[in-house]
Amino acid sequence: MQIIQELLETLKSNEQDMINLRRYFHQHPEISFQEKETSKYIQEFYKTLDCTLTQKGEGYGFVVDIIGGKPGIKVALRADFDALAVYEENDLSFKSQNPGVMHACGHDAHTAYIMILAKALIQLKEQLPGSIRIIHQPAEEVAPGGAKGMIEDGALEGVDHVFGVHVMTGMETGTIAFHSAETQTGRSNFTIELQGRGGHAAIPQLSNDAIIAGCYFVTQLQTVVSRRVDPFDTATLTIGSFDGVGTFNAIKDSVILKGDVRVMKESTREMIERQIRQMAKGLELTFGVSTKVEYDNNYPVLYNDKKLTEFLVEVLKKEELADVTEVVDLGPQTPSEDFSYYGQVVPSNFFYIGAHPDEEGDYPHHSPRFKLNEKSLLIAAQAVGVVTLHDLFENQDDPSQV
Amino acid sequence: MQIIQELLETLKSNEQDMINLRRYFHQHPEISFQEKETSKYIQEFYKTLDCTLTQKGEGYGFVVDIIGGKPGIKVALRADFDALAVYEENDLSFKSQNPGVMHACGHDAHTAYIMILAKALIQLKEQLPGSIRIIHQPAEEVAPGGAKGMIEDGALEGVDHVFGVHVMTGMETGTIAFHSAETQTGRSNFTIELQGRGGHAAIPQLSNDAIIAGCYFVTQLQTVVSRRVDPFDTATLTIGSFDGVGTFNAIKDSVILKGDVRVMKESTREMIERQIRQMAKGLELTFGVSTKVEYDNNYPVLYNDKKLTEFLVEVLKKEELADVTEVVDLGPQTPSEDFSYYGQVVPSNFFYIGAHPDEEGDYPHHSPRFKLNEKSLLIAAQAVGVVTLHDLFENQDDPSQV
Amino acid sequence: MQIIQELLETLKSNEQDMINLRRYFHQHPEISFQEKETSKYIQEFYKTLDCTLTQKGEGYGFVVDIIGGKPGIKVALRADFDALAVYEENDLSFKSQNPGVMHACGHDAHTAYIMILAKALIQLKEQLPGSIRIIHQPAEEVAPGGAKGMIEDGALEGVDHVFGVHVMTGMETGTIAFHSAETQTGRSNFTIELQGRGGHAAIPQLSNDAIIAGCYFVTQLQTVVSRRVDPFDTATLTIGSFDGVGTFNAIKDSVILKGDVRVMKESTREMIERQIRQMAKGLELTFGVSTKVEYDNNYPVLYNDKKLTEFLVEVLKKEELADVTEVVDLGPQTPSEDFSYYGQVVPSNFFYIGAHPDEEGDYPHHSPRFKLNEKSLLIAAQAVGVVTLHDLFENQDDPSQV
Amino acid sequence: MQIIQELLETLKSNEQDMINLRRYFHQHPEISFQEKETSKYIQEFYKTLDCTLTQKGEGYGFVVDIIGGKPGIKVALRADFDALAVYEENDLSFKSQNPGVMHACGHDAHTAYIMILAKALIQLKEQLPGSIRIIHQPAEEVAPGGAKGMIEDGALEGVDHVFGVHVMTGMETGTIAFHSAETQTGRSNFTIELQGRGGHAAIPQLSNDAIIAGCYFVTQLQTVVSRRVDPFDTATLTIGSFDGVGTFNAIKDSVILKGDVRVMKESTREMIERQIRQMAKGLELTFGVSTKVEYDNNYPVLYNDKKLTEFLVEVLKKEELADVTEVVDLGPQTPSEDFSYYGQVVPSNFFYIGAHPDEEGDYPHHSPRFKLNEKSLLIAAQAVGVVTLHDLFENQDDPSQV
Repeated sequence: MQIIQELLETLKSNEQDMINLRRYFHQHPEISFQEKETSKYIQEFYKTLDCTLTQKGEGYGFVVDIIGGKPGIKVALRADFDALAVYEENDLSFKSQNPGVMHACGHDAHTAYIMILAKALIQLKEQLPGSIRIIHQPAEEVAPGGAKGMIEDGALEGVDHVFGVHVMTGMETGTIAFHSAETQTGRSNFTIELQGRGGHAAIPQLSNDAIIAGCYFVTQLQTVVSRRVDPFDTATLTIGSFDGVGTFNAIKDSVILKGDVRVMKESTREMIERQIRQMAKGLELTFGVSTKVEYDNNYPVLYNDKKLTEFLVEVLKKEELADVTEVVDLGPQTPSEDFSYYGQVVPSNFFYIGAHPDEEGDYPHHSPRFKLNEKSLLIAAQAVGVVTLHDLFENQDDPSQV
Repeated sequence: MQIIQELLETLKSNEQDMINLRRYFHQHPEISFQEKETSKYIQEFYKTLDCTLTQKGEGYGFVVDIIGGKPGIKVALRADFDALAVYEENDLSFKSQNPGVMHACGHDAHTAYIMILAKALIQLKEQLPGSIRIIHQPAEEVAPGGAKGMIEDGALEGVDHVFGVHVMTGMETGTIAFHSAETQTGRSNFTIELQGRGGHAAIPQLSNDAIIAGCYFVTQLQTVVSRRVDPFDTATLTIGSFDGVGTFNAIKDSVILKGDVRVMKESTREMIERQIRQMAKGLELTFGVSTKVEYDNNYPVLYNDKKLTEFLVEVLKKEELADVTEVVDLGPQTPSEDFSYYGQVVPSNFFYIGAHPDEEGDYPHHSPRFKLNEKSLLIAAQAVGVVTLHDLFENQDDPSQV
Repeated sequence: MQIIQELLETLKSNEQDMINLRRYFHQHPEISFQEKETSKYIQEFYKTLDCTLTQKGEGYGFVVDIIGGKPGIKVALRADFDALAVYEENDLSFKSQNPGVMHACGHDAHTAYIMILAKALIQLKEQLPGSIRIIHQPAEEVAPGGAKGMIEDGALEGVDHVFGVHVMTGMETGTIAFHSAETQTGRSNFTIELQGRGGHAAIPQLSNDAIIAGCYFVTQLQTVVSRRVDPFDTATLTIGSFDGVGTFNAIKDSVILKGDVRVMKESTREMIERQIRQMAKGLELTFGVSTKVEYDNNYPVLYNDKKLTEFLVEVLKKEELADVTEVVDLGPQTPSEDFSYYGQVVPSNFFYIGAHPDEEGDYPHHSPRFKLNEKSLLIAAQAVGVVTLHDLFENQDDPSQV
Repeated sequence: MQIIQELLETLKSNEQDMINLRRYFHQHPEISFQEKETSKYIQEFYKTLDCTLTQKGEGYGFVVDIIGGKPGIKVALRADFDALAVYEENDLSFKSQNPGVMHACGHDAHTAYIMILAKALIQLKEQLPGSIRIIHQPAEEVAPGGAKGMIEDGALEGVDHVFGVHVMTGMETGTIAFHSAETQTGRSNFTIELQGRGGHAAIPQLSNDAIIAGCYFVTQLQTVVSRRVDPFDTATLTIGSFDGVGTFNAIKDSVILKGDVRVMKESTREMIERQIRQMAKGLELTFGVSTKVEYDNNYPVLYNDKKLTEFLVEVLKKEELADVTEVVDLGPQTPSEDFSYYGQVVPSNFFYIGAHPDEEGDYPHHSPRFKLNEKSLLIAAQAVGVVTLHDLFENQDDPSQV
């Protein structure tokens, strides 16, 4: 298609703009739920462009609607713009100017590429069958995440498909990776307070040792993964914090446990929550303590629609973008992502853009020395661009146009 | 007192009769609740003597009443006559003729000395203020024991005090030992069946592993003794049997645990039973198994009346019996004894007669090579005899006679 | 290809022979490692056919070599012929005549279909490029299995590919199922003896309670699956037998645990063995017991060569066999299979033939009421037949013939 | 004896001095090892009296020697003078003027009574056969305690017996209590650091969860008391602090446990230390963590010499002090006391002076509302006084003097 070539070229010729934007965001990071200036800056960008901005949710998120010249489906593209509470250790000209806050996960890149892509699409909009909604989302990093509130406020109304990407510095630049169906873990977090009765270490019979109850509980919890989960399924259950801090010679009256659950199926998540609650009830009888369970099912399993994934892979393989060397199935991934909320509502796909730095070794996401390859911005823009155009044109009323 | 000298001399001159009787019983042992011939043989002995025999309880137990010539209190003397399911390994002229059954705990000695003592007391009975009841008890070794049934059938009606002894082969012959208040442990036994759901070892999520539940339960039970019992109190809780026998590759559907509890206070026994039942309930919630608890509070704590113990010690020290070298406080003892049932009803005392063999090392009670020093028989007869006479005379209506 | 049509028709017209053979084997089952008569009967069948029989291994296994008229690769086809120690509860005209032994897993069907397939291939052999080896294998059901010994004795010498099938009564007749790469679990079994020191329940300090050590050990083992295994990997660790059978009031001196491990990767199997051995060593220090670990790595992970699986699926889909309704990816399977030994040596594929009975509900494999749909025999023969021919012809020196 | 009457009267007439001194100390508390002003104040008191002061140990402790007019034994009397880090909540005219520090355990009373008793004995010293050493000891409350250093510096050189008392507000004023042999628990404290390896909660296989290791360890430790300690012996083992504080979604790399052990026998203490160290070693193998055990055997079991206790009880019963209503055996006590160090060197006795307030209910020792009955001061002085005189006179060369 002619329009695809046009888009690719426009993006290519605006690559430096993407990089500049990305560096601006990198210099001015704001942590989750506090991205006021970031949001204002992005909105400013759209002011002179032919599109509509609408606030969504209680945070700083908003959507940009680009209405095509012909009827068709509505495709949403999501980019997150929050940063992390990390103190940057890189020596960069565009190093974070907000000490203790850093774009150490690449959301600066996500936002930058999508702004330039949006601008390019706006220029082409008269030719487009259907419409495009850019979702500028806050607060991906911190539960409950920004996606949930935006969706509740209508961010997906009328939307047929959602696409999103994540740059991945551990993967070669030029590689695009995908996975179908369950792709990133769902997550729950919980806090359990066990209340016993304190007392003198030498008179245990008058106390009720909460450390004892807590320790037996942690050993019991191991059976959830070892015996209750289908061995072909995926689950972790971690007690990440056991606060039973006290003194040598007093029996501890209470302990607080904090835990994390990861799954690849919602049914498994439900089963694990049931088990934890049940075991807490059991603990009450077994050790005579009282328990208080606060259980937060935060990010769902990220599910990539199978058909949409097949379509995406086909497009990416067919288009043979200049800077893309391979398109591979990466398998399921450990981290959780609030993009998963979109997938619960409409067919969606979240995929991965290799961004390994040219020079030295990579640092993991969330590291104070995290660096990404800025070539990944153009790749992201072109990949998401071609997928979007194909999606619109292949689903228009008059498919002969494709 | 003249009568005491008379009694001691009579016993001394009948020492060989005691030994002969003991050897007869040793040759003809019968296990608990099946002592038909033993009981008949003892009853035969009393036929020509001036006393009354009365059957008590559903077993082979009976009492012998010796009514004194003057009014006074009634003192009961108890001896047990059952043997053990042990295959004797001693090479004795009077070795057990009933293979697989053996008097390996000294009840043959208890019965022999008391018969001769009873006979001697019958000869003196006209001079006695008050009366004496000899309790020939079956089935001390096996719960629920013979004492309980005899008491329920009136064995202690009108009785003021009960005395009993046990020969002790680990203690020097000539030593008499006592302890006041809580003296031998009370015992409970329980069976807990845990019912899960069996299945294929490789599909744990469809089963409910009863071995898992059982193992966690056993680890939890450790906290009963470690955290619930006063450190100055005494308790053990043992799982003596864990039957989870199955095959390599199937998940076990049920396990059966058998346990034993020992205490020195009834309140501790009750606390432990409550804890075990509570923990079984907790296990049901924690692991989703069902549980069935059968709990049998069999032998009580053996309690020696404090005043009666003081009295006993005073008498034994004052009388300075020829063959007694010392009278010592032995402290509390581990084994359980159904003499404890008498102590629940009337002030009682159970004490210990050293019976270490002259020659070689001793074998523990219940060993197939158990042997006792037959000198202990006369010592037992004389010790119990003087205590009985003192008890009668010091409690008669006209104490000037003492 | 003409030859394929010929083979399919020959098989179709010999369907009743397959069924008759299967029923004969069903009536005369022999358990693993004792299949003397079964083996003799099969060998008899080949006597008049133009092929070579060679004994392989120490059991009753043998191979049948069919040398084609032209050069090419060597394809092996494996069928197992042992039965189970199960007492048949079906009411069939061809019910097991060997009480307590039953073909309750379908090996009768495997052997029957392959014999008729072999006969048909022998008739066509002059036209074949390459050769075919039929592997009649004993003892699949019982570790160490029959495959291992046959391979050690050269059963795979010169063999390029191995194919095998299993009938599956839980899957619709007409369905053929496959899976690529890791397909059935590898298995290990172990026995751990824990030696403590027995004693009186009320004197724990003089004993060393082996039930305690065993129970804590079982709780510790839960962490192997819950914390040591990649959540995207597969593993089970089951203690299927906990023999701590004893009496109420004695502390148990030793316990014997029997366990089962399933994995989908050899590296996981190795890690788990290391962990179990390590934890046993830890137990020795922690509880002062001695341990004896016997660890048997029996069946490997069954690995289906990826390329061979792709080839197989392509052939099956292309050929559109008359009675085959669909060819589906079944995903990984729980049971272990000693076909896995072949896959360790040469590229192999093991796939599944639906055999759900027409009438009523199915009973699981190994059930005394196990029944299979005999239509599955022809399907198996035709499916394996076409795959074999395609494999030979597509790999011949002159591929223009295909 | 005339001299006893004299002493008792002198003490009685100086009762108000004791109370004033006690109130002075109460107003000016200093915490353990920092009792500089307290020590100086006490020393000032002795300046004008006919006695010798000698510094002992590195703290503020010292001894006062009173040399009698005749030869004889040397009796030491010990009083401790440190206060606690407690913020007093009583509304008293002599409330602590040192906020956050309080004599909440009665050491003010101990020091006050002994000063007046010392003064009275100095007045009588010419008549005394033998000598008296007053031990003014610092730092009883905090390990390693003040006694150890003073003894190492010669505080017990030439001393034959040591006596000490503790006021006890839970016991009626007028009651004096004693116990023979093992009387107060010995104590150990330990810190165990478990080092695993941190990581992402969803990737457990790359970490080594220190919370897991810590929890299993705590459950294992329960078996020390439940299975390794003679049920007739006394022991507690408490983990009073479990510091595994972390975050929801990271696996904890290390945890720190703090524990407390109480025993009534040194052999039990040694066994428990061995067990804990052994189990830590076992944990290293079982869970692959490294462990660091710091074990501090601080206060020994307080042992009251049996003969000296008998003597003490006899004296107290015979003397029938005016304000003493009964002299009772209190049984063994839970708290630990560094008086126990004296008992390790010479025959000693530590006994209890009832000090229940007249008015309202009592608050436990160490409570911010702790109050004592000041009548207990005279009782302590008289009781210790008569015991001292009897001890000196009954052990003089010419016992006819007694």
